[in-house]
Amino acid sequence: MDIILLEASLELVPPEIRSHPSVTKNAKRVGKDPSEVLLDISLHYHAMQGLSYREKRGRPDIVHSALVMTLTDPGFSGEILIHTIDSKIIKVSKDMRPPKNYLRFVGLMEQLLVHGRVPVDGPPLMEVTSLRLEDVIKDRGLILLDEQGKRISKESLCTSSEYIGIGAYPHGEFSPEVRKMSKANFSISGHVLETQHVLCRLISACAQD
Amino acid sequence: MDIILLEASLELVPPEIRSHPSVTKNAKRVGKDPSEVLLDISLHYHAMQGLSYREKRGRPDIVHSALVMTLTDPGFSGEILIHTIDSKIIKVSKDMRPPKNYLRFVGLMEQLLVHGRVPVDGPPLMEVTSLRLEDVIKDRGLILLDEQGKRISKESLCTSSEYIGIGAYPHGEFSPEVRKMSKANFSISGHVLETQHVLCRLISACAQD
Repeated sequence: MDIILLEASLELVPPEIRSHPSVTKNAKRVGKDPSEVLLDISLHYHAMQGLSYREKRGRPDIVHSALVMTLTDPGFSGEILIHTIDSKIIKVSKDMRPPKNYLRFVGLMEQLLVHGRVPVDGPPLMEVTSLRLEDVIKDRGLILLDEQGKRISKESLCTSSEYIGIGAYPHGEFSPEVRKMSKANFSISGHVLETQHVLCRLISACAQD
Repeated sequence: MDIILLEASLELVPPEIRSHPSVTKNAKRVGKDPSEVLLDISLHYHAMQGLSYREKRGRPDIVHSALVMTLTDPGFSGEILIHTIDSKIIKVSKDMRPPKNYLRFVGLMEQLLVHGRVPVDGPPLMEVTSLRLEDVIKDRGLILLDEQGKRISKESLCTSSEYIGIGAYPHGEFSPEVRKMSKANFSISGHVLETQHVLCRLISACAQD
């Protein structure tokens, strides 16, 4: 079972709000340029008011909990990829051990998005590729997990040859661009689940325990 | 299914290291007295070198991820209690929604341990009780989840009348005091699982989805 985190709420502060006072003040406090800082609603709430699609943005903690959940679970042996809200594809090595400490995770993701890879030298643990989502899925296809999809058992996804796509943003729907790439939409719960709970259900059902 | 997080790595900086330079410097930076600060190995590594049982201490992020995992999952309807490494019993209301932001969680837990409850006024969402672990479990009993326990299916725990005890510390074994209170030791995986992965397996197996 290979997973793509879709439209992940993970990006640097976008150019249009880099000169907002709350952004510049915060960046100065940590000794960084605003262009090197992760967009985070807990820091940039006011600056984000005018951003498009803001309900889906500024929540890198969702990617953090998703990566910790997945990559530290000894029962998960699949691949995990990140497709970001601004359409970057990030490859994540199976050797990647995400920092559990949130502030260290933020520092690492800033380094990744600024330099395109971490670590900067040697074999990459995470890498921003030049791929598009359609390139990644073209040979295998994509299945979306979506509360409006057809209800199936979690176990039936364990042997899926398609990539399993899971939204990694706080609110809203998959974009039309992502929807039109999917072969099928499935649901594994009658509840609306957050990203980490979807991952938990899948890993738990499919773990080689 | 009701859960007790056992020997949880959650405490204020203990008296014997409150005057250590790394502790006082850090507390000053956030404008607090060292006695009001949560022990955290990412801040207090050097000061913790001389502490007893230090392999089990200074990891409030374990309780954070455990509470977020459990209390934000719409499929979990049980009770969750915290038994801390220094033997406090903390009651957690089902209405409690733990902050996802780690720094806000730390602030909340500091308030809880300093004042004995949060919020300070009104119905408590979390409360430090005067109970001991043996008081809590005496009518229902306690089952420990432990990699050395007898292997059983996750599903068989869903209807357990006993409390399910899960270690919430980074390394080491349950203490002899906790072990001797348990009726049975079970294992749900051939892997050594972290606290959040044990919770994930249980919630996922037992969720009313």
